Amino acid sequence: MSDRSENSSSLKASSTTVASGSGISSATLVRSAAALFLARGYATSTTRDLAEALGIRKATLYHYIDGKEDLLYAICRQSLDEISETIRETIATTAPADCIKEVITTHLRTVLAKQAMYSVTLMEARSLTGARKTEILAAREGYRSIVSEAVRQGQLTRRIRDDIDARYLTMALLNHLNWVLFWYTPEDGPADELADIYAKLYLEGAGRPL
Amino acid sequence: MSDRSENSSSLKASSTTVASGSGISSATLVRSAAALFLARGYATSTTRDLAEALGIRKATLYHYIDGKEDLLYAICRQSLDEISETIRETIATTAPADCIKEVITTHLRTVLAKQAMYSVTLMEARSLTGARKTEILAAREGYRSIVSEAVRQGQLTRRIRDDIDARYLTMALLNHLNWVLFWYTPEDGPADELADIYAKLYLEGAGRPL
Repeated sequence: MSDRSENSSSLKASSTTVASGSGISSATLVRSAAALFLARGYATSTTRDLAEALGIRKATLYHYIDGKEDLLYAICRQSLDEISETIRETIATTAPADCIKEVITTHLRTVLAKQAMYSVTLMEARSLTGARKTEILAAREGYRSIVSEAVRQGQLTRRIRDDIDARYLTMALLNHLNWVLFWYTPEDGPADELADIYAKLYLEGAGRPL
Repeated sequence: MSDRSENSSSLKASSTTVASGSGISSATLVRSAAALFLARGYATSTTRDLAEALGIRKATLYHYIDGKEDLLYAICRQSLDEISETIRETIATTAPADCIKEVITTHLRTVLAKQAMYSVTLMEARSLTGARKTEILAAREGYRSIVSEAVRQGQLTRRIRDDIDARYLTMALLNHLNWVLFWYTPEDGPADELADIYAKLYLEGAGRPL
């Protein structure tokens, strides 16, 4: 979609390394912004809040970014790049009969390791503007296509039912996977245990045969 | 939870009938606010935007409300009262074997008839403050309990699997039902046709037996 080295330098150049003086790394900046946007909502978060959370002056923060949208964009770009690459690799290396189960497990493991990043991507991507919004919505569509292709392969190999349109099956799977971001806390147990429940619910359903 | 006649008068008294002069009914006000909050997000919507959408002066709008939170509260309160009553009645009048299917059908029919109202309730209830937030989150919990009780009855009558905790089965059902609000447009067909797909996906799952 776009050059990754360019993506990772979407913050100002100085922020990709630990800057002299304030010493905030790009990763810290993005992670702190994700936590703040998740807690307060993007619309009502300010660069002042972020500077406070980082323990730096607001003027210092502006050495790293031009505005808070730089950070929302970086959060969305990094999340969508990571999940797309990871799931593409999962699909390429898993037998068709196990593929959807593996997609579920790997997706949950990936997003729960960075819950704030993925929650903000899910809920706030629509707050981006202009070309960045277009780019991120396209990247999200790209991830949907990867999952959709796995569902269609599942139908061809008769692991997934084909009396329901692949579009619904794909949307239901993505919805099922995204839902975890709204309720999970570490006390709910490790991602891999949840993945078993998620796979059963998605593949086998909640009902017992009548 | 709280007196319904009080709820419907959560806007200023004059707004419950068509006021002389500007002639905006309470229902119109709430419906317009829901459309606006859905399109722009609650945090970035202003009473000026709302007055413009209604074709009245901002000062006139303040005859009806003290601020935009009055409208968000009215949207959430009316939606949660309606869905709770409707689904409680569905459960009371349906045979256990058909109950979850009927809950799915009735829920979809109800929320799709007022998609903006229910979407805003789902996405923006967290933006309420103080006692209103507490009340609305409790009402949402009340609806969850109604659905949870239907799931547990389904387990007792062996319509719903009992090797997965009712908590997960309930959350998955609510998530499945709420998801429609994020993607549905009238071109996707009538609610009752969708309900068949939703019921199959929830009860039977996406997989074919191995």
